[in-house]
Amino acid sequence: MAAPTAESLIEANAAFYRAFEALDMAAMEAVWEASDRLFCVHPGWQALHGREAVLGSWRTILTNTAQIGFDLTAVRAEVWGGLGVVTLYENLQSTVGEEQHAATAISTNLFAFHGDQGGWKLFHHHASLAQASEPPGVVN
Amino acid sequence: MAAPTAESLIEANAAFYRAFEALDMAAMEAVWEASDRLFCVHPGWQALHGREAVLGSWRTILTNTAQIGFDLTAVRAEVWGGLGVVTLYENLQSTVGEEQHAATAISTNLFAFHGDQGGWKLFHHHASLAQASEPPGVVN
Repeated sequence: MAAPTAESLIEANAAFYRAFEALDMAAMEAVWEASDRLFCVHPGWQALHGREAVLGSWRTILTNTAQIGFDLTAVRAEVWGGLGVVTLYENLQSTVGEEQHAATAISTNLFAFHGDQGGWKLFHHHASLAQASEPPGVVN
Repeated sequence: MAAPTAESLIEANAAFYRAFEALDMAAMEAVWEASDRLFCVHPGWQALHGREAVLGSWRTILTNTAQIGFDLTAVRAEVWGGLGVVTLYENLQSTVGEEQHAATAISTNLFAFHGDQGGWKLFHHHASLAQASEPPGVVN
């Protein structure tokens, strides 16, 4: 049984991306908390709430992705009791249909520790594309 | 003194947007935690870490914004002990120079409760534009 440490949190976060890379829906379901408070923002999507909406989106994405690989950088993990916050860059390369994509997203991933369910479970994933452009109003 | 409740958390979150609307840098500084773990993603920006980088970005934004107003929708606040998670849509209208902008962003805001510093303090703000388009790989 994992303890609620930064190390086990980083491992739980890595398991999320391994499930995505493996296009393994069962593994993806196991990553997410068994609750209805799930929150998920895929880059550019509206926010999804609830286990059915969130896992449904993952089913669609995994079904329609031929291949995806991640290089995770700037991974930071903080633990406060049974709550874990991970921030990172997802540097991804994917194949959807015959199209190849490369992108970098910034993610906030929140995990809750459930000792009776195998450890850290993801309940909040907010991913957004990291772009080179600056928003209006900023002078560089 | 506020207690760490969902109500006081929602109020702290509202104070963040009031500081932005007032273009009030002193109020903005008071919203953020007095620590170096601050994390901030403005829509489309790279992630910023540390109090100096984060507050510096706000100084630039407040200086260069002529006017901004928010309508906050779908605000959800959850409290676990001294940690608060708020998600919401920021429906904003702004004037930068002579240009008018309207946009909707999704935000994840994390607050820590500091009884000795007046209550909830923001330490993590991740905002991204909510767009109508779907990412590659998704069939509607």
